[in-house]
Amino acid sequence: MQRDKLLMTPGPTNIPYKVREAMSRPMIHHRTEEFGFYFNQMNKGLKMVFQTENPVLTLASSGTGAMEASITNVFSPGDKVLIANGGVFGDRLVKIADRFGLDVVTMDIPWGQEVTGDDIEAILSSEKGEGIKGVLITHNETSTGVTNDIESIGNLLKDRDCLLIVDAISSLGGIDLQTDNWGVDIVIAGSQKAFMLPPGLAFVSVSQRAWAAVEKSTFPKFYFDFSAYRESLEKNTTPYTPAATLIIGASESLKMIKEQGLENIFARHENLAKACRAAVKALGLELFASENAASNLITSIKSPNEIDIERVRSILNLDYDIMVAGGQQHLKGKILRIGHMGYVDGFDLIKTLSALERALIKTGYDIELGTAVSAAQAVLEY
Amino acid sequence: MQRDKLLMTPGPTNIPYKVREAMSRPMIHHRTEEFGFYFNQMNKGLKMVFQTENPVLTLASSGTGAMEASITNVFSPGDKVLIANGGVFGDRLVKIADRFGLDVVTMDIPWGQEVTGDDIEAILSSEKGEGIKGVLITHNETSTGVTNDIESIGNLLKDRDCLLIVDAISSLGGIDLQTDNWGVDIVIAGSQKAFMLPPGLAFVSVSQRAWAAVEKSTFPKFYFDFSAYRESLEKNTTPYTPAATLIIGASESLKMIKEQGLENIFARHENLAKACRAAVKALGLELFASENAASNLITSIKSPNEIDIERVRSILNLDYDIMVAGGQQHLKGKILRIGHMGYVDGFDLIKTLSALERALIKTGYDIELGTAVSAAQAVLEY
Repeated sequence: MQRDKLLMTPGPTNIPYKVREAMSRPMIHHRTEEFGFYFNQMNKGLKMVFQTENPVLTLASSGTGAMEASITNVFSPGDKVLIANGGVFGDRLVKIADRFGLDVVTMDIPWGQEVTGDDIEAILSSEKGEGIKGVLITHNETSTGVTNDIESIGNLLKDRDCLLIVDAISSLGGIDLQTDNWGVDIVIAGSQKAFMLPPGLAFVSVSQRAWAAVEKSTFPKFYFDFSAYRESLEKNTTPYTPAATLIIGASESLKMIKEQGLENIFARHENLAKACRAAVKALGLELFASENAASNLITSIKSPNEIDIERVRSILNLDYDIMVAGGQQHLKGKILRIGHMGYVDGFDLIKTLSALERALIKTGYDIELGTAVSAAQAVLEY
Repeated sequence: MQRDKLLMTPGPTNIPYKVREAMSRPMIHHRTEEFGFYFNQMNKGLKMVFQTENPVLTLASSGTGAMEASITNVFSPGDKVLIANGGVFGDRLVKIADRFGLDVVTMDIPWGQEVTGDDIEAILSSEKGEGIKGVLITHNETSTGVTNDIESIGNLLKDRDCLLIVDAISSLGGIDLQTDNWGVDIVIAGSQKAFMLPPGLAFVSVSQRAWAAVEKSTFPKFYFDFSAYRESLEKNTTPYTPAATLIIGASESLKMIKEQGLENIFARHENLAKACRAAVKALGLELFASENAASNLITSIKSPNEIDIERVRSILNLDYDIMVAGGQQHLKGKILRIGHMGYVDGFDLIKTLSALERALIKTGYDIELGTAVSAAQAVLEY
């Protein structure tokens, strides 16, 4: 039996039917009151999820576009920045900043480890740290399954003349990120993760301090010029044709998020992660990410030497229509990553773990059926 | 009775149910064979519509993003370009090129008039034309309803060391544009016009000559770096997360375009335009665009002095759920623009004209009911 795919990947994630239905309605024009209603609903919802009073800009682009925009809008060529690089997406920040000629100080974090405020402090207080105008960091590094502690880094930078830019593409709406309280100047999010939407939209919040930096930036930009988006946003519109169906979908998914409550959503993700980790341990497998920084949105699992983890992934996909992720770059074939973000509940996790048990056995890993699901059941609250 | 909106606007346009249904299916992951199938189908379809053997790149952005990308990928700061500016979108090309520090020679065309090869030739052969590395022009200027003759300009530039970049965002797939035969180096298209899709994707074809220019360009770019898209395209994938649902929709709409045949689609648009112009004249109204350059995709109509054309537009929208466009910038309140592009047929035009007759009468313009629809009926072939 071929089933609809269950996406247990770190994005794209499953999309509720209500949201898909909203996006499939007959097209409407974007310069109308009707579209303005959806746009406004989305924008209110974004402020709630970003936990901010700052304007949240919506770009028709992938998250990478918004990462680039965040760099070219607040810096100028040659500006010195510190980038924490502990995975594929930290590395992308470095690549973009390099490409645009920033003076990049890279903090190389072993994959699977978190960045701490102390690490950042050590660099900022050293000679290397002189003149650093911004710290760029990934909130939730999906390539490793690590979540960094943004609050401590925010506290560190509050009284320094240094911007904090956080790539929260895979985390926002899934785990707590208090943009204003923690003093995060720019938060970048993407539609295809905890927002329960298809890819194609990126969201960016910009603080007062960051707007002051926008004024000084000398990079030329047009499509990604934050000022144009802010100006249009004040009139409840967009500077260029918006990705209208995705925005209509966002207004619907943000309504669902509001109804459920951010706190409850964070708690659900935390519980799913705990259950998943308990199941992994019960199977005798090892977690890849440092336990005190293990993500609530994605669980990375080390492959036992004796089995072909890519075959496990393939069985899950082809035999059971459940998609999980493998390792990226040097971790290819070495880890398995189970996403549990967005429109995912305990039943989805149980289904995934029950399939994982079977896939492991098929691959020659000796376990007793029921081990993982029982361990998860004991932890799940639903 | 409230009806689904009929979009007779120059984008977004109506979307066939089949395409909307395809986009509303449960989400799939973009790094899979299944998505690769859709992506490949779309790419084959794009080559057909672009009439090119060049790679056609797909960006998650609005058309404006692709306009910027076309400039930053083949030029360098200070490069001299000639831009034909005869409306809002010609003006946008000028603004982007200015922003990125190109040396812009602007050809100001009176709104409603076309650009000819002779006009371009005159500039290129003059002192002003020395060192011009590229000519940028709008194929179909929706703000005025004018279509420019790209073939003659292409012929002019074939043996010159000068790139031809055409903004065909509103025209491609609706009127003939023979990318390879006419020697167009870069063609830019958008999803929300004749492609019968929502906004959110932009398509760009890049010629061999343009790729050589890409090698020399010194603008920093990352998200819009054409080379990254080409490299991924060769592996049937994308460098960053693609706007997957829109791509799935595109594979479906391009299948419909293929089934119908490009020639037949061009003929349908031509016939719709002729019928629309005949109806306008029968009503005693004047066409805004120069008749020999009047677009087959959008008909612009001068407002008679005695009536409030914005009220006509509002009646069409609010009383009859038919959206047409008004004038932009200095043409606001002075023209009405009826789009007939994409998923629009003769019945849609008849419906629109019958409503237009009523709206004109309500606004105090004295005509006999049936005038416009009869004139259109006599011309329409369906």
